Amino acid sequence: MPLSARIDAALQSAIRVGQADPAPAKLAEALAYAVTPGGARIRPTILLSVALACGDSDPGLASAAAAALELIHCASLVHDDLPAFDDAPIRRGKPTVHRAYGEPLAVLTGDSLIILAFDTVATAGAENPARALELTRILARRTGMPFGICAGQGWESEPRIDLAAYHQAKTGALFMAATEMGAVAAGEPAEPWVELGARIGEAFQVADDLRDALESEATLGKPVGQDVRLGRPSAVTEFGVEGAIDRLKNNLAGAIASIPSCPGEAALAEMVRKTAERLTPVRPTIPGE
Amino acid sequence: MPLSARIDAALQSAIRVGQADPAPAKLAEALAYAVTPGGARIRPTILLSVALACGDSDPGLASAAAAALELIHCASLVHDDLPAFDDAPIRRGKPTVHRAYGEPLAVLTGDSLIILAFDTVATAGAENPARALELTRILARRTGMPFGICAGQGWESEPRIDLAAYHQAKTGALFMAATEMGAVAAGEPAEPWVELGARIGEAFQVADDLRDALESEATLGKPVGQDVRLGRPSAVTEFGVEGAIDRLKNNLAGAIASIPSCPGEAALAEMVRKTAERLTPVRPTIPGE
Repeated sequence: MPLSARIDAALQSAIRVGQADPAPAKLAEALAYAVTPGGARIRPTILLSVALACGDSDPGLASAAAAALELIHCASLVHDDLPAFDDAPIRRGKPTVHRAYGEPLAVLTGDSLIILAFDTVATAGAENPARALELTRILARRTGMPFGICAGQGWESEPRIDLAAYHQAKTGALFMAATEMGAVAAGEPAEPWVELGARIGEAFQVADDLRDALESEATLGKPVGQDVRLGRPSAVTEFGVEGAIDRLKNNLAGAIASIPSCPGEAALAEMVRKTAERLTPVRPTIPGE
Repeated sequence: MPLSARIDAALQSAIRVGQADPAPAKLAEALAYAVTPGGARIRPTILLSVALACGDSDPGLASAAAAALELIHCASLVHDDLPAFDDAPIRRGKPTVHRAYGEPLAVLTGDSLIILAFDTVATAGAENPARALELTRILARRTGMPFGICAGQGWESEPRIDLAAYHQAKTGALFMAATEMGAVAAGEPAEPWVELGARIGEAFQVADDLRDALESEATLGKPVGQDVRLGRPSAVTEFGVEGAIDRLKNNLAGAIASIPSCPGEAALAEMVRKTAERLTPVRPTIPGE
């Protein structure tokens, strides 16, 4: 089964648990609306790639972990899109959850997806409870306070931002969760896999900065985009476009170099290379998630 | 140590984990603001009472489970108070989290407390991973969709409400979690303890209906309160005040009768009797949580 089909099946299975009768119909519908159709599913793809590289000794648990990580990512998008944050009208080509279902159900959709993520890991952990518990712990740390994506969002309410902590929490955390959880689901320790996730996360952040700058050149006829207008820190404003591309390439090379010795090392390096190709800009407008 | 001190210590310890450096300061502060000083802490008190009745063989895990359950309850209050729901200005005698910290941080506080709850159980589960994983599963089911408090809130967006499902999810779920989790933390199966939680939850719901009706008589000079004005289902509108008090007493008697045979059966029955005294109205205005 290709990874994308495995991820979709695990997500569908998790969503069905959240929709079991008797459920309030609109909230049940909104859970699926927020998760499907998805974006690139890059975080669960990394998670399963690491699990496979480590031997994938409990495929059910690894698939559940991948679904859980994507559920958390989708929950964060639903809450980030709320009027109190970005007030976004459109996400993945359709109205955001609060535009389609109203704000109360959007808050509850995010909450329910977060909880469903933990439910999914716990339910799949019967055969390896210690692994599942460690997966729960990692997922919580990389999602909540003080080091997870909630913290990353929380930094934006501070008058002075700790930039390293901000970037690692906001963008890096779920990529680190991806590599750590992939290893743990397969029975390997998490720690040797942290750097791979951190490096991919940094590359992703730089690629996002580049997209922001280059898309604006193309669509707005201006040399720089939202990051500058909103005073956000950006690799492009700091290092220029060429400097940022160098940083992106260096991070991805560092990511490949950091892969621990394991049975599937070569295939995993190939996955990172493909991610690099997707991320590296070769034209003014970069399509993506 | 009295139960209240044990609960406070476990909550303080959990909150400190969420506030570890480097954390965004306002969100870190808001976590503590939302949790302390607390209300009656009735759910964690029930949880620990059941754990003690069952022998309390892993006190650290039971305390963590009690803290986790209260964190979830506090998170639900923060999100329920948001402008999109009740738009409440005051909670427990001070401004609600969104009034004190703004709406973005209130959303993030609720999210972070939910995640911290799962983190707390996972971190305390090293010695008994299977128990901790079962606690995680119960907490998720009683909190999220389709049977938990998120579902309870979600029913309020439906044109037609399944009343039994609504009450059990909205009020009953966390009481059922309390008795189930108390048993599981002590190494006992959850199922025999479901009825006790369900009965206490129903009693709590009836007591809440009574308070709503009787407080209105005293303060508004009207025989009925918000439930009638908002068209909410209520035991008082259905059965009258005396009928509702009978239901409350029957539910608590049923709760005591349902207690499974266990070493601490007598002490647990006493705890339920005390809860009954707190809940049963003996005067027009009942102070409470």
